[in-house]
Amino acid sequence: MGNIFSDRISDVPRSFIREILKFTIDESVISFAGGLPNRDLFPLEEIKKATQKVLETAGKDVLQYSTSEGHEELREWIVNRYKLKNISVQSDNVLITTGSQQGLDLLGKTFLNEGDNVVIEEPGYLGAIQAFSIYRSTFFPVPVTPDGMVIDLLEQAISNHLIKLIYCVPNFQNPSGISYSEENRKEIARILKDKKTILIEDDPYGELRFLGENKPSFHQLIPENTVLLGSFSKIVVPSFRIGWIVARDEIMEKLIVAKQASDLHTNYFGQRIIMQYLKDNDINEHIQKIRQAYGGQREAMVAAIKEFFPEETQYTQPEGGMFLWITLPERLSAMEVFNKAIQRKVAFVPGDPFYVNPKGVNTLRLNYSSVDPETIRVGIKRLGAVLKEILA
Amino acid sequence: MGNIFSDRISDVPRSFIREILKFTIDESVISFAGGLPNRDLFPLEEIKKATQKVLETAGKDVLQYSTSEGHEELREWIVNRYKLKNISVQSDNVLITTGSQQGLDLLGKTFLNEGDNVVIEEPGYLGAIQAFSIYRSTFFPVPVTPDGMVIDLLEQAISNHLIKLIYCVPNFQNPSGISYSEENRKEIARILKDKKTILIEDDPYGELRFLGENKPSFHQLIPENTVLLGSFSKIVVPSFRIGWIVARDEIMEKLIVAKQASDLHTNYFGQRIIMQYLKDNDINEHIQKIRQAYGGQREAMVAAIKEFFPEETQYTQPEGGMFLWITLPERLSAMEVFNKAIQRKVAFVPGDPFYVNPKGVNTLRLNYSSVDPETIRVGIKRLGAVLKEILA
Repeated sequence: MGNIFSDRISDVPRSFIREILKFTIDESVISFAGGLPNRDLFPLEEIKKATQKVLETAGKDVLQYSTSEGHEELREWIVNRYKLKNISVQSDNVLITTGSQQGLDLLGKTFLNEGDNVVIEEPGYLGAIQAFSIYRSTFFPVPVTPDGMVIDLLEQAISNHLIKLIYCVPNFQNPSGISYSEENRKEIARILKDKKTILIEDDPYGELRFLGENKPSFHQLIPENTVLLGSFSKIVVPSFRIGWIVARDEIMEKLIVAKQASDLHTNYFGQRIIMQYLKDNDINEHIQKIRQAYGGQREAMVAAIKEFFPEETQYTQPEGGMFLWITLPERLSAMEVFNKAIQRKVAFVPGDPFYVNPKGVNTLRLNYSSVDPETIRVGIKRLGAVLKEILA
Repeated sequence: MGNIFSDRISDVPRSFIREILKFTIDESVISFAGGLPNRDLFPLEEIKKATQKVLETAGKDVLQYSTSEGHEELREWIVNRYKLKNISVQSDNVLITTGSQQGLDLLGKTFLNEGDNVVIEEPGYLGAIQAFSIYRSTFFPVPVTPDGMVIDLLEQAISNHLIKLIYCVPNFQNPSGISYSEENRKEIARILKDKKTILIEDDPYGELRFLGENKPSFHQLIPENTVLLGSFSKIVVPSFRIGWIVARDEIMEKLIVAKQASDLHTNYFGQRIIMQYLKDNDINEHIQKIRQAYGGQREAMVAAIKEFFPEETQYTQPEGGMFLWITLPERLSAMEVFNKAIQRKVAFVPGDPFYVNPKGVNTLRLNYSSVDPETIRVGIKRLGAVLKEILA
C-alpha cells in the first residue's frame, strides 16, 4: 500500500481548463476559454417569482428528502417536451440527475468494467473523458468532421473490438461546434442495428439552434441502443445542477441503484423551482432569446475571424450551441499561441485536453456565448495579431 | 457481452428500505421505517427569507456555474464551527458535496481498487455499503456494541489484512443509535497510529445530542488518518443535498478531481441559501429545538417499549440522533415480524439490509425522529402486541 489512492483516480486527467481559467480572473483578459451560458439571459425575475410561489404553496414538503427518480411533474414535462419533437418516452424512463455530468458518472457505474471499450469523439468533451476514466475504460477516439463521425473509422472500431459505449454530442458539439448530418446519423444507426452497443446521445445544446434545420435524434433512429442525456443548464440556469437521463426500463433499473449510491436524489428544491418556472413562463420564447443572442455572437466571431485571422486558419461554422473550433496552420502549437495570447489579454482553450492522447495540437476552442459582440471583435483582433506575429 | 452491464452494478444491494417504504404510503400505517428528520422543525420561514435575500443581493451570480470546491464563505463557516469543537481545519481542506452520500461515492472513487479491504460496522449504514460496493471493495464487518467497535475484532482484521478504509458513524450510529465511548475511540486511534489506513468518520447526527457529553472526534485523535464527513441535512434541511468532506491536502486534491468527474459542483443556489440562513439565524438555538424534540420522542419510544414489548426484548439507549435498535429473542426473525406488523399498520426496518451477509436476523431499526410522542406510543403498542402474539 505504498500508494494509498485508487489506480483510477491517477488515470483521470486533471482539468486543464480549470488551470486556464485562473488566467482569466484578470478582468482585462477577454476570455473565450470558459464554457458558460450568457448570464445576461438568466431569467432572474422569473426564478424569483417561481421560488416564492414554491415556498408559498408547497411549504415544508420542498425541504424534505425526496425520491431518487426525481420530481414526477418535472419528468412528465420532459416527456411532453420530447413529444413535441416526435421522441416518444415515458416518465418512468426519465431519471433526474445532478446535472448532465452526473448522467455520465451513472452510465459509467452502470456499464463499465475495467478495460471496457468506449468510442468517443475526437476532439471530444473533457467531462466525458474524465467521467469514464474513473471506470478505467479503454478509449477509441473517432475523429469528427463538420458532418459528424468518420464512418469508416467508427465501423472499423466496431468490427474489430467489442465496443460497449459510444459517446457523442451530435448537436453543436463541445468542443468543435459541429453537428452530425442526417445522413451521418443514419449511417451510425445502420452500423449499430442489432448490436448491443449503447450510444449515449448527450444533448445539452440541442435547443440552441440558430441556423439550419433540426436533425433526427438517435433516440428516434435506434431507440433500443440509445441513452439520451438532457439538461436545464443551457436553457434555464446551470447553478441548480439539474439534468436528466432517458433510458429503457432494464437500464433505468440499474441507473436508479447507481443514483442512490451516488447522492440519494437530486436537490429537490431546485427541481420544484424549475418546474414552477416552466409552468409560469413560455420556455420557447426564452429559448428564442438565447438563440438570437448566441446567433449574433457567433456571427460577430466569424466576421472577426475573417477580418483578423491569418488566411490559412480554418474554422467550423456552428449552427447552434456555444463553441467554435479553430484549426491553425500545422506548424503552430495552440499551447504556444496560448502563452503569447495571454500576455495580450486574450484567452481560449488549446485543443490538447479534448484529445485522449494530447500532443501539442494546432487546434483550439473558442466560446462565444459568454462574450458580447463588441468584445468578441476586440478579442479576436488581439488573437489575430498574435497569430500573425507568430507566423511572421 | 451477454450481460451489457458492469459487474459492479450487479453487486450493489438494492435498497430494501425503498421497498419497505412503499408499504408506508398508506397513511393509516404508523411508520418507524423511514430515516427522515422531523419536518415540523424545518425552518421554513427563515429559509424563505434567506432565499429572498440571496436573490435580491447576489442576483444572477447565484444562477451561474460555480467552483467544484464549493462556496468559499460556507466552507469558512464550517471551519469556524469545527473551531468551536476544538477541531482544527482550513477551508482548503473542506469540499462541499451533494449530500454526505456523495462524500462516500467520492471516497470510493479516490481510494478503492477492486478487492480493496474496507472495515464497516455491523450493523452498518446501508448507503455506505452501496457506495463502496460500486467500487467492488471487500467488506470486513466489525460488530458494534453500545460502547463502539469490538476492539479485538478490529485489531484482528487490521493485523491479518491490509485495510484501506474504516467506515464508521461514531455518534448515534445509523442504524443502531449507539455511540463510541471515549475509551473505544482512543483504542481505535492507538491501533491506527502509524498505519496508512484511512478512517472515515461520518458524522451527520453529531450535533443532535440530547443526553450525555460530547466525545472527542477521530479528527482530534488521529487527524492524519481521518476523513470527516458532515451534512446540513439533519440540522437545517435535507432537500438541498448539501454536505461536506474534510480531508488533508493530498487527499483533497484527488477528491476535487473525483468531484469534477461526478457532477462538476454542488448546486450553488442551495449553498448560498444555506449560508444566508446561517448568517441571519442562531443555528445553536435551532439545533437546541431539534435536540429537545428528538430527546422527547426517544423518551416516549423507550417508555412505550418498556410498557408494551415482551420482557426479553433488548434495545439501545441512544444519547442523540434518530434511531434505536431492537434485538428480539433469538428465535424470532425480524422479517417475519415485519410481515405481521404491516397488517397491524405499523412499520419498521428489519435488520437484514444493515448486514453485508443478511441471514434472517432478529434485529430491527426504529426511527423516532419523524413520529410524534403520542403516535410513537400507539405504534409501539401495536408492535408489542404483534411480538407477544408471535412469542405466544
